Amino acid sequence: MEAPANITIKGILSLLMQSIDDDDDMKKKSVISLGMGDPSAYSCFQAPPVASHAVAEALHSHRFNGYSPTVGLPQTRRAIAEYLSGDLPYDLSSDDVFVTSGCTQAIDVALAMLARPGSNILLPRPGFPIYELCAAFRGLEVRHFDLLPQNGWKVDLAGVEALADQNTVAMVVINPGNPCGNVYSYQHLKEIAETAERLKILVIADEVYGHLAFGRNPFVPMGVFGSTVPVLTLGSLSKRWIVPGWRLGWFVTCDPSGSFRKPKMVERIKKYFDILGGPSTFIQAAVPRILEETEENFFKKTIKVLKQTSDICFDRVKEIPCITCPYKPEGSMAVMMKLNLSILEDISDDIDLCFKLAKEESVIILPGEKPSERTAVGLKNWLRITFAVDPESLEEGLARLKSFCKRHTKQQLGS
Amino acid sequence: MEAPANITIKGILSLLMQSIDDDDDMKKKSVISLGMGDPSAYSCFQAPPVASHAVAEALHSHRFNGYSPTVGLPQTRRAIAEYLSGDLPYDLSSDDVFVTSGCTQAIDVALAMLARPGSNILLPRPGFPIYELCAAFRGLEVRHFDLLPQNGWKVDLAGVEALADQNTVAMVVINPGNPCGNVYSYQHLKEIAETAERLKILVIADEVYGHLAFGRNPFVPMGVFGSTVPVLTLGSLSKRWIVPGWRLGWFVTCDPSGSFRKPKMVERIKKYFDILGGPSTFIQAAVPRILEETEENFFKKTIKVLKQTSDICFDRVKEIPCITCPYKPEGSMAVMMKLNLSILEDISDDIDLCFKLAKEESVIILPGEKPSERTAVGLKNWLRITFAVDPESLEEGLARLKSFCKRHTKQQLGS
Repeated sequence: MEAPANITIKGILSLLMQSIDDDDDMKKKSVISLGMGDPSAYSCFQAPPVASHAVAEALHSHRFNGYSPTVGLPQTRRAIAEYLSGDLPYDLSSDDVFVTSGCTQAIDVALAMLARPGSNILLPRPGFPIYELCAAFRGLEVRHFDLLPQNGWKVDLAGVEALADQNTVAMVVINPGNPCGNVYSYQHLKEIAETAERLKILVIADEVYGHLAFGRNPFVPMGVFGSTVPVLTLGSLSKRWIVPGWRLGWFVTCDPSGSFRKPKMVERIKKYFDILGGPSTFIQAAVPRILEETEENFFKKTIKVLKQTSDICFDRVKEIPCITCPYKPEGSMAVMMKLNLSILEDISDDIDLCFKLAKEESVIILPGEKPSERTAVGLKNWLRITFAVDPESLEEGLARLKSFCKRHTKQQLGS
Repeated sequence: MEAPANITIKGILSLLMQSIDDDDDMKKKSVISLGMGDPSAYSCFQAPPVASHAVAEALHSHRFNGYSPTVGLPQTRRAIAEYLSGDLPYDLSSDDVFVTSGCTQAIDVALAMLARPGSNILLPRPGFPIYELCAAFRGLEVRHFDLLPQNGWKVDLAGVEALADQNTVAMVVINPGNPCGNVYSYQHLKEIAETAERLKILVIADEVYGHLAFGRNPFVPMGVFGSTVPVLTLGSLSKRWIVPGWRLGWFVTCDPSGSFRKPKMVERIKKYFDILGGPSTFIQAAVPRILEETEENFFKKTIKVLKQTSDICFDRVKEIPCITCPYKPEGSMAVMMKLNLSILEDISDDIDLCFKLAKEESVIILPGEKPSERTAVGLKNWLRITFAVDPESLEEGLARLKSFCKRHTKQQLGS
């Protein structure tokens, strides 16, 4: 009956926040968190007005206070199918779409539907710790493949082939990447699909950061390769519409050949949705209008700000000798930075740095590995920095990080 | 990888709805459903205006678009703790309350937290089929104890004692009762608590219909006996506020002695919430105002209408020879009726009756047992009728049921 050993990002951030001295109210007021992928608190990242209007309209109509079908309202499923089909070489049907309480619940659906005695799942390292926690609760063994920092955080496909066996059910691909900020090319996604097809495993495509790409590669949904290998696409309104608290996500079967989407599996998925709480009916009812009426300019503005803040992040960290960024982020809201401990004098590891930084500078960033040797994003002596923060706070937070690092740099190296 | 055999109420109702002739549009328009506990479609059961106002206020403040803690917003937990403590001999703390996506998710939390290899749970028969389905997904063995129709649908406590063994983790008590319409006395709840204490099992108290009592017994929450036995209380805004589609529920540990609520269990529960989607932050933010400002008159009006419609239901069914109601409903939104097949000439069982009734009269009621011999609420040749329907539709639906039964009554008995 013990809890799984895994800890989530929210779990670590909460420990870090607690470590900031409670007595010092002045200090506490100026806490800068570069920890969580939730920019909704910043004025430069506000949800589009049409989204709130559509929800308020559905609420005040009093037509959506009742239960929806547990798999989602028909019009919501249809609207999401149409939205996603726009980027695919085939059309999804409403029946492919299951509406979830945010992408978190979509992750649980995917893992719970694939778990069977003895089965294992391949997860990226670094990755997103909800997968590990969910696998622990649903009885799936976890095996980690590497993302390669020197190679644009691409999937180590040889590693994937080496890890997979006849009990492997799926591999997870997060693109645009959390926590690495990568955006995979069409070619790399094709290689992933072909590898998965060869191994007879599914691809779970976590596209919660879908369309948030601002570098060379455009965002290509994994579902493009649904004819090569069945793809379970997970997504939500959370990041692109900057409403993570609305809890409106989707679990979608991109499987035009129907090799996963067999009647028995569909029956099983539908029954699983009967025991989930699911999202509010009136928010679901607002989805068609939100998807249709959000203006392109809103998305462009978000991309522009993220490009600006990711540049700030990359440039400022260049000025900090003990931290290096192997890959300039091109998407999502986070980036991984490597820590060079050898030039620091009293920092034992990434966790030590993050706790001391919180205490001394009231800046929160996420260690690559979590306290007591259990994985967070899963890379020891790396840091995850979220740049979905207003530019001013980001500049200030990184300046404090720089001054912290300078203060803790070995004497002969410090200025 | 097969789906569990269980079917939910929504599943059966959807089959019944499909069986109504699609070609006959006129008929389809006048469908009367006495099947589901969702009265939000009827004008006599409308959510209080303050509830929508509070949600709209939170939405338009733009302060609640971000993530909440996965266990719920602090102010929401506190408000629910205070609301429930008002009826308890001790005070719940915020930490006892976990905010869920409706009562459905609270059921999953309870069962998932108690499941361990080989464990079993005691469920009432008749009951609410989400429990059986959830137990199947979470790997809990189910054992059924009877509710006794001739004894006010009280729990067969001798049966509970006979079923329990060292692997039994909990028993479920639904009060006010779904599907029976019972409201248990203080004395009977005390006996249940003492039995559970003797058996060293928890009580899961499903109080989704809490306070919806209109007979002799006032509603007494099971948590009153939390010092005798740890009680996990499940509830929601759904029924009392008539907003089932808002998906705002709670899982609450009523355990003043702390025998269940040990640090390791709390850690496990918290981690489980990290993989759940949870309810929308802005709806959570509205809960304190909703709980504080809903006027007593609103509740009184709902109770008055439910009393009226339950009386209509009880009285009209008296006029139908082949259906008897052993217990006049005193709470919740549903009642169980016994079918006397011997006086019907071409009805083979409850399922046959419900499908023929849907086809011939466009009236939907729930059979006690589901198609293909798997349990619905779990009583063969009984019917569950929901009376949370406007009086006019209810009269019309029951008149059609009466005429249906008369038409199918054996010749020598028919008029």
